[in-house]
Amino acid sequence: MVDRWYNIAADLPGVLAPPKDPDEGESRIALLTRILPSALIDQEFTAERWVPIPEEVREVYRRVGRPTPLLRAEGFERALGTKVHIYYKYEGVLPVGSHKLNTAVAQAYYAKADGAVEVATETGAGQWGMAVSLAAALFGLKATVFMTRSSYNSKRQRLVFMRAYGATVYPSPSEVTETGRRHFRPDHPGSLGIAISEAVEYVLSGERRKYLPGSVMEFVLLHQTVIGLEAMRQLPEEPDYAVACVGGGSNFGGFTYPMLGAKLRGEGFGKTKFLAVESAAAPKLTRGEYRYDFPDATGILPLIKMYTLGHDYVPPPVHAAGLRYHGAAPSLSLLKRLGHVEAVAYGQEEVMEAALLFARSEGVLPAPESAHAVRAVIYLAKKLPPGSVVVFNMSGHGLLDVDAYEKALEWEKIYKHPED
Amino acid sequence: MVDRWYNIAADLPGVLAPPKDPDEGESRIALLTRILPSALIDQEFTAERWVPIPEEVREVYRRVGRPTPLLRAEGFERALGTKVHIYYKYEGVLPVGSHKLNTAVAQAYYAKADGAVEVATETGAGQWGMAVSLAAALFGLKATVFMTRSSYNSKRQRLVFMRAYGATVYPSPSEVTETGRRHFRPDHPGSLGIAISEAVEYVLSGERRKYLPGSVMEFVLLHQTVIGLEAMRQLPEEPDYAVACVGGGSNFGGFTYPMLGAKLRGEGFGKTKFLAVESAAAPKLTRGEYRYDFPDATGILPLIKMYTLGHDYVPPPVHAAGLRYHGAAPSLSLLKRLGHVEAVAYGQEEVMEAALLFARSEGVLPAPESAHAVRAVIYLAKKLPPGSVVVFNMSGHGLLDVDAYEKALEWEKIYKHPED
Repeated sequence: MVDRWYNIAADLPGVLAPPKDPDEGESRIALLTRILPSALIDQEFTAERWVPIPEEVREVYRRVGRPTPLLRAEGFERALGTKVHIYYKYEGVLPVGSHKLNTAVAQAYYAKADGAVEVATETGAGQWGMAVSLAAALFGLKATVFMTRSSYNSKRQRLVFMRAYGATVYPSPSEVTETGRRHFRPDHPGSLGIAISEAVEYVLSGERRKYLPGSVMEFVLLHQTVIGLEAMRQLPEEPDYAVACVGGGSNFGGFTYPMLGAKLRGEGFGKTKFLAVESAAAPKLTRGEYRYDFPDATGILPLIKMYTLGHDYVPPPVHAAGLRYHGAAPSLSLLKRLGHVEAVAYGQEEVMEAALLFARSEGVLPAPESAHAVRAVIYLAKKLPPGSVVVFNMSGHGLLDVDAYEKALEWEKIYKHPED
Repeated sequence: MVDRWYNIAADLPGVLAPPKDPDEGESRIALLTRILPSALIDQEFTAERWVPIPEEVREVYRRVGRPTPLLRAEGFERALGTKVHIYYKYEGVLPVGSHKLNTAVAQAYYAKADGAVEVATETGAGQWGMAVSLAAALFGLKATVFMTRSSYNSKRQRLVFMRAYGATVYPSPSEVTETGRRHFRPDHPGSLGIAISEAVEYVLSGERRKYLPGSVMEFVLLHQTVIGLEAMRQLPEEPDYAVACVGGGSNFGGFTYPMLGAKLRGEGFGKTKFLAVESAAAPKLTRGEYRYDFPDATGILPLIKMYTLGHDYVPPPVHAAGLRYHGAAPSLSLLKRLGHVEAVAYGQEEVMEAALLFARSEGVLPAPESAHAVRAVIYLAKKLPPGSVVVFNMSGHGLLDVDAYEKALEWEKIYKHPED
């Protein structure tokens, strides 16, 4: 059982630009220290290579099914007719169906350690909200989730499951915060920016409440390294490529950083390349600018230096809601900038085609986000010489993404019968 | 890795009455031999204690995530305030989310070994149809599924996922069989009996097609013993109670028979009791008659001796669709009859209340079927002395059962606020 997280800050080949305040307005950094559990602030800035995982967090990791399996996708290899060895780490066995739970559990633990009795957050499609709802329940905390109203009205499953875990869920804009009331009208679809503002305001307006963020922050990537650390123990051979999809970067960083760190230190994985796969709907690593920008649409959080499409960028609606994000975590952006990470972007039609092929040859129905990695692996399997090794992270299953699969079947029909 | 299934026929303390034909009409047994893969007929009647699992089936078991985890539910124990040790085997990690895949994979393999290119079956809520669709895909077979029309119209997720696995799915009654056309009207809700008849007719009307049944047959229970055999290796202490829910009996038999067989042979598990949990909507073990009856509503399959509510019994609609079955497999019925298995029935309100408690303390959202076992475990945890050990099978997760959880939250509100 992995008993410490890996912090890539200790091994970065360049200087990681720190978060900073904009020239005008209130201090966002001061705000962060008020709303986040204090241990997370420490973890955001520490340069220690290893951070011990508290025993209570490890106990929960065990109980929710960690270590998760690392599997060889032999059926998928046969379906592709490739001699490349394909392995995948499978986070979909976690009760909420995705990797998000790994950091939610840690954050809820630290919130409780600070004396909090309640945690609050925002959620779009509901993956993060579901992870926070469960993590809070496991530590006996109340959870309050602001869910963008369009998702609240259309994503009934994750809404119901958050409530099944005991959370209070408000459609955002809501009527319970000033911010919400300012934007409120019954047909407002909401946005993650407004929902973040509501969650932060909610935390500040009450006692013993903490705010839990789902990605981008370095401590989120830190907690997710439990995935990659397990994978390193499980892999029977060193990979030529390690692949994962990128929303804000916690899935990619969590999976690849332990291997990438070993490579940077000259302690193995010398031949391994690292491929970040993003959605063509939010191609920050392949088409963004490297500069300071707000991590949230409304600019209440500190500026961070990263690849960004601009914090006011509105990605087109795609099924992989978790990848619809304008920026990438500072460490990931730096590693891309310095050439230690490669990146590629795919459109959702080819991504869901890859998902169908994987499902039919291995069984797991990939989450639309994870299917981006599957698509990239197909490319690598065709390009690399026989005997090469590719490993990717299947960050979640798609059992709550029926719309994406219904659409995939429509596209398949169109492409198979262009005469229709 | 388990490499053989366990056949309780070798250790039964009484005579297992064989399937037989009714006095009138065509031979149902002759029909079975025409529609089933031949190896399954052999397995239905063999008295060999151990049946080797073919290497191809074991490979698939590995690739879909076997062995599945056995976990200690420490959070649930704390929530109950019990000193009883509670363990659960978790089949929800399988890609389709339930144990059904274990026998579907074996049956598809044997169909292919017989030269079949296509398999057909019926499905209600879609669990079995989804398992068959995936199993067929993994062995390169075509799958055709007749889904009761009411489910076809209301259970969009499993319908889409069956198609994502490549299956052809018809609403039943359909227009592709004689039986279907006889019953067809656009608003006919369908029934499992009609759907079985359609699948059988479909198999008989084409070349190289085989029919795959989802429960009740002894070979289905045989294949499911992979669950219990794994659990025996994983359990750190011998249980006082082994608990599982009962639809037709394959989940219960698969989980408990390896332990029960050891007990019958005097090779351990001497103190273990076996508790079958059924739905109050279909209480065959607690309120049925022990006699020969048809396993299917329309009587095209052979008569089997079992506890039954009558093959024309129509269970009220409950969320645990997998438990809405009028009979219990012959071996299970005999073991109940002889006092080696205890049985209890629960209503769905108290069952879903148990599901919520489990979800909030362990994370897994139990399938409504599996939640029946959870409910029984709560009873045992309160009744048994400290230090007692209970193990149950969580046959699947409830991520595709959002309606059941929505209802559970409504019930919870009513019970918590009776004045509303």
